[in-house]
Amino acid sequence: MTTPAASASLADVQAPVRPGLEQVRGEIRRLIEADFPFISEVNGHLLQMQGKLFRPTMLLLANEATGVRDPRAVTFAGVIELIHLATLVHDDAVDHSVLRRGMPTINALFSHQVSVIMGDYLYSRAVIELVRQQDLEALGVLSRVTNEMTMGEMRQLLAHDGLEFDEPAYDLLIRSKTASLLSGACEVGALRATPAQREGLRHFGDQLGMVFQITDDLLDYVGEEVETGKPVGGDLREHKVTLPLIAALPRFSAAERAEVKGLMADPAPSDERIQGVIQAVMRHGGLEYARARAERHAEQADRALDALPPSAARDALRASIPYVLERRS
Amino acid sequence: MTTPAASASLADVQAPVRPGLEQVRGEIRRLIEADFPFISEVNGHLLQMQGKLFRPTMLLLANEATGVRDPRAVTFAGVIELIHLATLVHDDAVDHSVLRRGMPTINALFSHQVSVIMGDYLYSRAVIELVRQQDLEALGVLSRVTNEMTMGEMRQLLAHDGLEFDEPAYDLLIRSKTASLLSGACEVGALRATPAQREGLRHFGDQLGMVFQITDDLLDYVGEEVETGKPVGGDLREHKVTLPLIAALPRFSAAERAEVKGLMADPAPSDERIQGVIQAVMRHGGLEYARARAERHAEQADRALDALPPSAARDALRASIPYVLERRS
Repeated sequence: MTTPAASASLADVQAPVRPGLEQVRGEIRRLIEADFPFISEVNGHLLQMQGKLFRPTMLLLANEATGVRDPRAVTFAGVIELIHLATLVHDDAVDHSVLRRGMPTINALFSHQVSVIMGDYLYSRAVIELVRQQDLEALGVLSRVTNEMTMGEMRQLLAHDGLEFDEPAYDLLIRSKTASLLSGACEVGALRATPAQREGLRHFGDQLGMVFQITDDLLDYVGEEVETGKPVGGDLREHKVTLPLIAALPRFSAAERAEVKGLMADPAPSDERIQGVIQAVMRHGGLEYARARAERHAEQADRALDALPPSAARDALRASIPYVLERRS
Repeated sequence: MTTPAASASLADVQAPVRPGLEQVRGEIRRLIEADFPFISEVNGHLLQMQGKLFRPTMLLLANEATGVRDPRAVTFAGVIELIHLATLVHDDAVDHSVLRRGMPTINALFSHQVSVIMGDYLYSRAVIELVRQQDLEALGVLSRVTNEMTMGEMRQLLAHDGLEFDEPAYDLLIRSKTASLLSGACEVGALRATPAQREGLRHFGDQLGMVFQITDDLLDYVGEEVETGKPVGGDLREHKVTLPLIAALPRFSAAERAEVKGLMADPAPSDERIQGVIQAVMRHGGLEYARARAERHAEQADRALDALPPSAARDALRASIPYVLERRS
């Protein structure tokens, strides 16, 4: 078995598909374009909000790594980012968030109404483009993924306050909320590959997505605000139950359990209260447990890549695993 | 030219496709089904909110009227209603409405968050089903229509307060917001017909949709609350500018214009203020103008049906025109 590289930067991961990623930015601009000044204005802000294009990166790398280059990969990568943007815009509408990636949200800049409509606009544009590509397979994968993500969002709503929210429920949540789109990105990159490669990449994306979300949830316990851009304990503040707490809770004393219940019942918990619960989670090994789970998924992701022939793209896919596992933001 | 029937009930219009409509209800239930108790609960409320199935009716009639019966018509009709439901749920989220068709909205019963997510759930289910039908043509029509509807919703946001909102802008708004889906329903019913019939039905749906929305906007001026379920002047209360006002405004005196401006600047206009503007619209012929426009579209809709061979379904499509034009709710 190949062991994952000790560490990797995003630049390393993106290196083999750098020119493709530049084209993806152009595709996204084309896909969201509207003959309607107000939508163009909203689009301008969306384009400024664009992040690292992590999902398009995975799609392009997956495509390269199969050795069967699909000329539609850049367009599919644009569509993946569009779907991701649509879910971010709706998430911000659902959460009434005012900041995303350090930038004001569509919510904050325009209104909650504009966010709801804009998410629908972006998603329907993604479907229109897939129809234009005359590809029912890509449509099949991505409509299933989009539906799974909505169920993940619903599960997220139910994961508030609930101390009976357990590990299987958490797994269902993060798989549908996060892993599904990464898995879909990798699979759509491999539509013209062999069934074994396509399945290998689908599984790789799924496992990488699990690593991604568990790491995200860990960062909420141990991240540095200056790096993550979010204050530590933000999930607990919003009463979101994630893996570190789920894992530690059975070992909590009655007093510690009472502390957690108190926090969940408090509409605006103090920093002290949040720190108290974070410390209890640490004392009872919640972070180690979550880290071990993330590492197990990382190993699975790594193993899934053995279905592919050696290449620079496969190396970059491998390097994405420690990048996701060790990132600090 | 055939003149539209003097009047028609919904039962008359639906008579030729009554058994199909029963099957559509079953299809809708199948399409939204989820292996997730919370979504099943929301679904239960959605199914209770189901209205007259007007769009599925038009799709099934269009299909019958072509003489080329498409075995997928019942499923497509379910999908059309799903897309319609998705837009209603998001509209209610955007407007923070608490009532729809006299029933509490998903908004009111659960939360605004659930409405946003549920709309996405329904729409992605519609796409999944179209992919399952392996039909890129239906997908092409319906993704375009869905995108047009989001632009209609955006235009609706901009149609608030704006006295510079004119008739061409109004036409764009109602065509994208309302006519597009009826037009799409009729076109999808005719996917296996001749190009002339398909185009005729598309145009019929478009013109019927214009009649539908202009009539809706007229009912806001002259409807009886006991019949429409909404108080008269609701649009003006929300600062929505529609055709009767647009048509009358150029003939308003300076004092009457000032009255309108006052209403638009008033976050909670009184009934007297609203009645004042309604009376001014009436004095200057705003209602007659809108009625005449609706009738012109009704004639166009009627003429479009000449592309079809005579049949009971064609008669029912014809009867839908006076039904839409003369309905009181």
